[in-house]
This record gives sequence, C-alpha cells and structure tokens, in this order.
Amino acid sequence: MHTLRFEPAGAAVSAPTGALLSDVARAAGLELNMPCGGQGRCGRCAVIAHNGVGIRRRSTVRLSSADLAAGYALACQAVVEGDALITIPPQEKIERRLVTDKTVARVDLPFAYRPAQHQTVRCFELMLEPPSLADQTDDWSRLQRGLAAAGGPSTLTAHLSLLQRLGPLLRETNWQVTAIVETDTWEQPTGPARLLDLLPSADAIWGIAADIGTTTVSVYLVNLLNGEIAAKAAEYNGQIKRGEDIISRIIYAGKNSGLPELQTLVVDTLNQLIERAARRAKIEPAQIYKMTVAGNSTMIHLLLGLPPASIRLEPFVTAINQPPLLRAGELGLAIHPQAGVDCLPGVASYVGADITAGVVAAGVVDNEPLTLFLDVGTNGEMVLGNRDWLITCACSAGPAFEGAGVRDGMRATTGAIEEVWIHQQSFEPTCRVIADPRREVRGEATPPAGLCGSGLISLLAELFITGVIDKSGNLNFMLGSPRVRRGEHGPEYVVAWAGETAHGRDIVLTKVDIDNLMRAKAAIFAGFTVLAQSVGVELAAVEQVLIGGAFGQYINVEKAVQLGLLPDMPWEAFQFLGNTSLRGALLALLNREYRRQIAEAAAKMTYLELSADNSFYEAFTSALFLPHTDLERFPSVMEVMGVRSQESGVATT
Amino acid sequence: MHTLRFEPAGAAVSAPTGALLSDVARAAGLELNMPCGGQGRCGRCAVIAHNGVGIRRRSTVRLSSADLAAGYALACQAVVEGDALITIPPQEKIERRLVTDKTVARVDLPFAYRPAQHQTVRCFELMLEPPSLADQTDDWSRLQRGLAAAGGPSTLTAHLSLLQRLGPLLRETNWQVTAIVETDTWEQPTGPARLLDLLPSADAIWGIAADIGTTTVSVYLVNLLNGEIAAKAAEYNGQIKRGEDIISRIIYAGKNSGLPELQTLVVDTLNQLIERAARRAKIEPAQIYKMTVAGNSTMIHLLLGLPPASIRLEPFVTAINQPPLLRAGELGLAIHPQAGVDCLPGVASYVGADITAGVVAAGVVDNEPLTLFLDVGTNGEMVLGNRDWLITCACSAGPAFEGAGVRDGMRATTGAIEEVWIHQQSFEPTCRVIADPRREVRGEATPPAGLCGSGLISLLAELFITGVIDKSGNLNFMLGSPRVRRGEHGPEYVVAWAGETAHGRDIVLTKVDIDNLMRAKAAIFAGFTVLAQSVGVELAAVEQVLIGGAFGQYINVEKAVQLGLLPDMPWEAFQFLGNTSLRGALLALLNREYRRQIAEAAAKMTYLELSADNSFYEAFTSALFLPHTDLERFPSVMEVMGVRSQESGVATT
Repeated sequence: MHTLRFEPAGAAVSAPTGALLSDVARAAGLELNMPCGGQGRCGRCAVIAHNGVGIRRRSTVRLSSADLAAGYALACQAVVEGDALITIPPQEKIERRLVTDKTVARVDLPFAYRPAQHQTVRCFELMLEPPSLADQTDDWSRLQRGLAAAGGPSTLTAHLSLLQRLGPLLRETNWQVTAIVETDTWEQPTGPARLLDLLPSADAIWGIAADIGTTTVSVYLVNLLNGEIAAKAAEYNGQIKRGEDIISRIIYAGKNSGLPELQTLVVDTLNQLIERAARRAKIEPAQIYKMTVAGNSTMIHLLLGLPPASIRLEPFVTAINQPPLLRAGELGLAIHPQAGVDCLPGVASYVGADITAGVVAAGVVDNEPLTLFLDVGTNGEMVLGNRDWLITCACSAGPAFEGAGVRDGMRATTGAIEEVWIHQQSFEPTCRVIADPRREVRGEATPPAGLCGSGLISLLAELFITGVIDKSGNLNFMLGSPRVRRGEHGPEYVVAWAGETAHGRDIVLTKVDIDNLMRAKAAIFAGFTVLAQSVGVELAAVEQVLIGGAFGQYINVEKAVQLGLLPDMPWEAFQFLGNTSLRGALLALLNREYRRQIAEAAAKMTYLELSADNSFYEAFTSALFLPHTDLERFPSVMEVMGVRSQESGVATT
Repeated sequence: MHTLRFEPAGAAVSAPTGALLSDVARAAGLELNMPCGGQGRCGRCAVIAHNGVGIRRRSTVRLSSADLAAGYALACQAVVEGDALITIPPQEKIERRLVTDKTVARVDLPFAYRPAQHQTVRCFELMLEPPSLADQTDDWSRLQRGLAAAGGPSTLTAHLSLLQRLGPLLRETNWQVTAIVETDTWEQPTGPARLLDLLPSADAIWGIAADIGTTTVSVYLVNLLNGEIAAKAAEYNGQIKRGEDIISRIIYAGKNSGLPELQTLVVDTLNQLIERAARRAKIEPAQIYKMTVAGNSTMIHLLLGLPPASIRLEPFVTAINQPPLLRAGELGLAIHPQAGVDCLPGVASYVGADITAGVVAAGVVDNEPLTLFLDVGTNGEMVLGNRDWLITCACSAGPAFEGAGVRDGMRATTGAIEEVWIHQQSFEPTCRVIADPRREVRGEATPPAGLCGSGLISLLAELFITGVIDKSGNLNFMLGSPRVRRGEHGPEYVVAWAGETAHGRDIVLTKVDIDNLMRAKAAIFAGFTVLAQSVGVELAAVEQVLIGGAFGQYINVEKAVQLGLLPDMPWEAFQFLGNTSLRGALLALLNREYRRQIAEAAAKMTYLELSADNSFYEAFTSALFLPHTDLERFPSVMEVMGVRSQESGVATT
C-alpha cells in the first residue's frame, strides 16, 4: 500500500499499486470534474503529481510538454505506483444559463382535467362505521367497504408498513380518514388498487412530472386535484461532472462503482428540484404521491441503476424499454415512499421516452398532416409520421452543436457567442454574446469566451452565404481578409481578436471545426432523407416540422436551412415547442389516456437502425456539402446566394 | 440516571427513574423468562435486588414474605428509583417434548400434483435468440417473448434489483436461462406475473408450508416440481418466553418495543426451522420461492408486525383477516427475498387461518355429512357445517387444558403425568409419565413433576367415574382415602406423594383446579350447543367429529366424553387429524384450487360472537356439571357410571 496525500484538502489515504488516481481521490471524498467520464479525453481532471515516481501516466494526450514538465497528470489516466503528493487545482464550477428554472410559463392543457376520469391517484374522504359486536369486520375489510361505498375501487392492496399503522390510525381519527389511492395504473392487466396513505385529512395531493435530460433536469409540481402547476424547477444534471455526453456517462457507469454513483447523482438532482419546487409551493414533499418521468434511454437506465453498457455496443439494445411502475422509496426519491414512479416507455437505445413523450406532447399522433418531429442534441432523434404511422431514427451527430469537439466551442452560458452576422464586403463579424447579468446591470458589454451551438450554426451559415467558405467548407484565402488565415491548426477564421475576448486569446473557427460541424449537419439531414425514403415519401411532402428540446429553442431556422441542417421549407412550417419531453410527462401524469397514447406511440414506432442501413451512408455523403449536393432541394438558399453573389461579385461556385 | 449492575453477567447499565427493570435487563441483552407477558402474574421473572432503595416493587402478588425478605422482586413489576445490584437467577430452560420435529410422516396428497395446473410458482428453461442489428428488442421484452413462447405468462413484472442484473446475466449465460416465475396468485384481480429470479439452471425449486402455533411452529419443505415433502421441522415458538398464551402476547405486544420484539422472535424461529429443514434436504434456503403460512389471527398479526391490541378488546376485531401477498424480504424471512409469503385468511379475532386451513384440510368443505371440526387449546375453536354451510365460534376455555392455571399443571414435557387410572375400590392412582429418554435408556422410571392437559382430562374423568368427586366436582371425604384431604388451598386429591416426585413435593389436584377445568370443558361444550342451536340442528345430528391441533393428538376421547368435554358419540365418529393447520398450508402451497377453497371457506363461514350471545351463558351454566345437567345427552357415561356404582356400591348421585 502507498500513501497519497492530497493538497490543498490535506487528506492522506492508502492505495494499492495499480489503483486509479481518480478512484483514490473519490474514495477520499475529493471532487474532480470528469466531463468525458474518465476516458482521458477532456483533460479536466488534471492534477499535479509532485513526486514523479509515485504516479504512472497511462495517457497524456491532453497534456502539453509544458504541462508534463510542471508535473501535471490526468487523474483518470494516472496509476498509483508509490507514495505521492498530489495537488488538486481549483475545480471549474459549473455555471451556466438556466433560463427555465423558476419561470412558470402558463401551461395550457389540451383537455379539461377531471380527476375522476383522468387521474390514477385520487383521495377519498371516508366516514367509517366503527366496529361493534354486531359488526366485527376487520379494519382492512371495513376500510375497503367504505372506500367502495365512496365510489373508490373495491379491492385494495397496501404496503406492509401502512397495514401496520392501520388499526391505531383508524381509532385515533375516530374512523374518519382520507384515503390516498392509486385506483389503477394505465395498463392492462392491472393488479388490485393500492392504498398509498391514510391521513386525518388532505386538502391537496401532488404529483411530479420530470424530464431527465443529459444536461438539464426539469420538473413540474402539479396539484392532482385540479391539474394546476404550482411550481417549476430546473437544474443541471448532477452527472455532468462524470461525463458531458451520453457516451461518456455509459463509459463511466462501466467503471467500478460508477453506476451507483451516477444513480445517486441524478437522484440527488431530482431531490433538490423536488425540495425546491415544494418550498416554492409551500407543500411537503411527502404529499407527493405520483411521479412521471421522461428522459432518453440512458438517463432512464441510470436513474434505475440498470447497467447501460449494451446501449453503446453493437447491436445497441437497452436492458428495458418499458420499466414497470416503481415506488419512490426503492429509488431513494424524497417524495412519499409509496408514490408510484412511472418511467415512460422508450423505443430503442437512442430513441427514448423523451421522444415518445415528445411526439405525443407535440400532437403528432393526433394529426393527419405528415409531420417531422425533431430533437437535436448530441444525437439527432427524429420521428416522421402522423396519426396512422410513425417511423424513427437517431443520428449520431456528435456533440458539435453543443459546442464540444470544436476548438472554441462552449455551452450556451455567459460569454458564449450565440449569433454572428458577417459583412458581405468586409467579412467582419458582428457577434451577440450571452451577457453576464452583473455586467449588464452596469451597462458593460460581456467579452466573448467562445461559440455555443446556435452561434456555430449562425457563423457557419454566414461564412457560407458571404463566400468566406465554399460548399465544401474550404476557406477562401483570396478575399484579402486578415480574419482568414493559417493558424496553428490549419486554416481558420478569426471570430474575435485576443484583445476583445474574455481570456485574451483569439476565438477562431478552424477548418477542422467546420468539417466537424458539416459532418454533424450531414448526419441529421441524412436521417431525414433515409427516414422519408424508407417509407417511400418525398421529404418535400412533409407538411410541418416540430422541433423539441432545449437546443431547438435557440436555433435560427433560416441559418439552419442555409447550412442544410433543416429542410428548405417556409418559415410557417417550423414550430419550436420547447421541452416536449417534460410536457409529455405532464400529460401522462395527469391523464391516463395520454399515458396510454405514449405507450401506443412507443409500441407502434418503427425504429430504423441507421448503422445497418447502407442508404444512410450515401445520403450522408450527399449532405456533406453546404447546403447539399443537390441544390434543387434548397431553393430559398439558392435565391439568397444568387442575391449575395450579385452584391459582392463573388461567384457562388 | 441510575446505575444498575446485573450479576452474574457482570453488565452495568444506566437507566432513568421510572424505568421498568425488565426493560433495562432486556436493553442490556439479559434474558428473562416472562411467560405471562410481563403482567406480574407468573412470577418467572423474579430477580434479587440487593439494594432495597434502588428498586420499587409495583406488585408482589407472586412473592411470599420470605421471598421479599430475601430481596426478590418481579422484574416486570419493579421500577428503578436508584442505583442497584441485581442478581438474575438461572433462567428455566424450555425443555419439552417435540415429537413432531424430524418425523417425516408420509403425507398423502388428496390429488395428483401437476405443477402446470396447480402451482403458481414455476420454472421455465429459456433459450433466447441473442439480439442483433436486425432484432434490437430490449432484454426485458426479449425475455418476456421467450417466456411466452415457452408456455409461460406473456406479461411480467420484477423487482428492480433483478432488472438491474438482467442485462449482464443474460449475456453471461449466453441467453440460456431458467426463469422462476410466479405465474399468478390464486386471487382475482391479479396483476402481471412476477419474475422471481433468473438462474443459469435450476434442478428444483422449493416451497415452505408453515403453521405458526402459539406454542409450536412447524414447517414442511416441499419440492414444488413434484410436490414431495423433503423435510419437516418443528420448534417451540420463540415468543413463549414473552407470554405462554395469546392474551399474554397481546399484552406484551402493547408494551414499549414489545411488538417488534415478538415479530423478531417468531421470524427467528421460522428462520431456524427453514435453515434446519434446508440442511436436512441439502438445499439452499435461497432456492425457496414460495411460503404459505397458517396460524391463529394473533400469530399472523405478530408475524406481520400488526398491532394485535384490538383482538383482545371488545368488540374483538382484527386489523386484517386476509393479508395481501407479501415478499419474504419485507418480513426478514431467510428464503429468497422475492418469495411470495401467503398468509392464509382468517375469519375473526379468535377464528384464524389455522381453522380455515384446518377445515379445508379436514375435507369438511367437500363433504355432505354434518361435521363438527374442533381445535382445542387455550381457546376452543369449532366449526359446524358441511359443503353447503359453515358456522364457527371460539370459546375462551382458558389455559387449563394446557396445564396452566392449575396448581400442578405443566406442559406435555418430560415428567408430565399424561394419563391416570384410579382404582375403583382403593382410589389409588396409577400414572403414566412422559419419560426422560436418558432415564428410559437406563431402564429407570421417570418421576412425575406435574400434570399435563391429557393427564388432567384423564384424572378428572377417573375421579368422577370412581366417585371421588361428584357431578359438581366436590371431593368425597367419606371414602376414607388418605388421598382426599384438605390442603393449604382447600380440598384436594393427592396424585403423587412427595417421595415419588421429581421435586419432592406432593402433586395434587385441588378443588380450585377442578373448578377451573370444569369451566374450561363447560365453555367448550356450551360452544357446541350454541353453534347447533343457532342453525336449528340437534348436536345429536352431528355425524362426525374431526379433531385438529396438537392437543387433539393426545386426548383420550372416552375420558373427554365422560367429562362432558366432547359430545357422547360412538368412537368411530371421532377422528384425530393432527396438525390440520399445517396440512391446510401444505395444500394451499401446492394447489391454487385448495388456496381458493380456503379463501371461500373464510368468506362463507358465519362467525358467532359468543360474548354477544345470551344463550351461551345458559348453555355454559348447564354444562358446569360432570358430564352435564342433562344426563340424557351422555348415555354411554350413564352406562359406565351405572356399572361402576354397582361394582363399588357408591351411589352415582
């Protein structure tokens, strides 16, 4: 065993030869960011090893020779071989823009809520006849008889802990109680109804609708008696520090105790949100008797502690697409321990409950028009169909649109460039930066720190339309602009000069970045194409495009069409629906009919596995141009390019 | 806080003023017998308090002035008021005759066991198609599909812990697994089937049938594939030290932490038996996937941790007569944690699952003849009826027939007089004593220590038939026998002289004892009478008397009839069925049809509450004679008395 001392925490722990430094640090209770899930790719877990012989570096890809000279090592790639003194640098705090927390936008339900008809959890006020020598019915049967007489279900089950309290409780309340009953679940065959709790009285019972996103977790706290949303809360998924994207989390879950750790992190996040929402609505979390959860398949696996490994490996299958109804207590959720936790059903490894809930929330299953439903993030998940049929696929777009895998990419937080305009003659950019509220108050501009997803789309489209890049993404060195140059990493366009930026370095978009972005947009557009082909319809036949997900809210459709990320359709055909996953969870929470629709949607959705589909590669290759090999598909883009080329005199190639 | 030191254990603990000494001792882990449940009635928890001021005696009814002078106090009635040194005398070890343990009598089932038709827990060997890009069905759906194809149920649920192991398990076993499935329960409406476990293979799956008696707990370990009993085990209920009878246990359960303690004690007893049976059959307890439990209502309440207080208090109702199916893990039972634990349904506070199971096991519900089913213990529970109707009641006979409440009464263990014959002329008794096996081996007689239930019945009948007592139970001092005398406690008959006994004291039956026994037998016979009256049939119309319960096995029918405990019927009409409760549990374990019959019997049994019935008191008073006020009801007894009185010249009054 070797002794490892950690500074500045001052902790000293023993570890055997071969132990991973990141595991040792975690065991010592020391926090290290690992956005890549411990793959050695992100470099965020770098620490300083003061004793060179105690630590062996398995991989140093993220470290420069200067870093190595200074003693840096990646904790997730450093193996203990002797005693060592380790300094953990201050860890980057996650500080992002969470516009959705607290904002209780008015949510209109597409139906008039009637609990007796729609709700599976109800409360019944009972006035029971006390037992007598003439009526020695046992307490439990007496309660069931009273419940049936009050219009409730006639057969009941309950958790043992409630049965143990039954006798004293009925006598203390003088046989007048409120029964909280899960009258049924939405599914068939269903067991007996379940008594969740008995209370002296109850003026409201509550439910939680939750969306577990890879990045953000959001909840609604809902009054189950009237269907009103009493509070909303959102927070970054606590798993982020163990992997920014789904793949990193799956890898992390495969490590020693990685899975229970990820489960605890997301449960903690949910519990914080529940507590916050309950505080805002001035209720007790123990009054929450139902929870409905949407999320992608990996997030649901991690919430339930199911090993997600098979999601990532061919043939890409989940452990379970339709989890059974669970109890909050089993999962450590800090609501009533008997509350049912209903994880909505998914379709496949990369088409999860967020999509099935989203499709129903977006009304796709109700409507006749041919609809394309789209959720763009690390993966582009898309559904094509209408009320008669649904087909779905997921394109691995990579994290480029989320600002990762791009040199100066960043998330949509303070300092991110979210929109860019390029002057047709000077090729000088104008940027809109996400403002730091503290500077904003003082009337100061916020210096840019990088480019977020919407900024990247905007920039790439502008570069193309102004002719700074050609349809293959090559930079035009003939323009005479100082912003087009050969940098350390090859050709690049300078978006902001060092003197203007937050960190004093140039912000650039390199040819490598451009290629990444083009591959991402090509993957998504190829998805549309293959989806349409597979059912024998033209993409042009799509009548509406419904865009869900947080990213969708900030996308500029015009720019996205100019890139060839979205199909060229009139503006009115696009609708941005925000968090359709959360909305679907809300509908399922309140109305068993919507819950049934989501299950039906999951059952009838045909999943197209693109990795098994040759036509996908073909469509992808065709889409690897701006906007596309086949310009006929983008008449509006052709028109803009025509206008601009006349203005600037630059040929459109 | 005061300091209490306990000898000889040497433990020292702190306790506040007012603490009960028995609670303090238990908290210190020291064992004290409390057969009366801490009511201060039995005197078994007597300890010596060496410091008179530290302990206040709340009650001393069981202590003589000599005891008090020696410092004795009843721990259950002693309140801490200062520091004290306490000596705990050696505690009486429970040592009784347990003839039923180990003896695997061949048990014939009344049906040919076919698991596919009868059994709710079955195993299915599955060879699943591995997933591929062409078939990306999730693991859970794949398993269900395979199960349905193998003839199993098509919808399934499972505990989260099993779902968490699902993916790795299917891959490790190369998609060839044995699924242990609870295909349904006997009841309607039923939920989806439940996957209990997945194993690489299973050559047998096991079940436990259990009878929890107030005194004895018995189990069968059964192979669920062929219905064969592989082992049997029986043990005294570990709760005995906290109360010999039901009422004492209910009182003890009402004390601080009494209920969880009693629950733990019976669970421990069951776990010991399960472990013992498993060892005998050479199987692992984790291979036991189902358990069916019979027992009286109080025993079932204590097993489930349900407060039993209302059973004892007017209007005498249970918390629950038909418990839901529970999981072994919830109860701490050391079998497979997901095994269903099916507590059979009872009818009322004093007519429990032991009786409903017994009635079905005895075949009462199948047959046309009018049948009296009887289980005599502390309570005499009886059922009158046939396949068309059933009526039941329970008579509080008191514990006299179990040897308690009788001066020299004892349980049926080593040294107990179990049968007595009295000489018609000399009035000298001949006794059969339950032998000490160690003495028996050496050819020595075992000296008597007291009278057990069957001995008391035998003795009382002999005293009556020989004219030592009259029909009112008064001793005949005119006989000139030295055995009839006035003792310290009034008139008595000496069964054994001090020189012959194990403890060197005379063994006597006092007039007080006789009165107790007569009240007990009168209560039971009054029960028969009222039951028959209430449905308008004559007791003479009963065609058979089926006697269940352990006590029934040792009863001498002839003597019992002579007392007027049992109705006067030909010998052939009586059948002793042994432990019908355990047999009923076995039938329910193996065959859902019998399980349904037991539920039906419980539902259709009319319960007669005797404390609300005036005719009971009348019938009781009439039965307070030997054999009865109405001698016409006992023709065979009249005949014997006639013969004997001629022989001895003593008038029969």
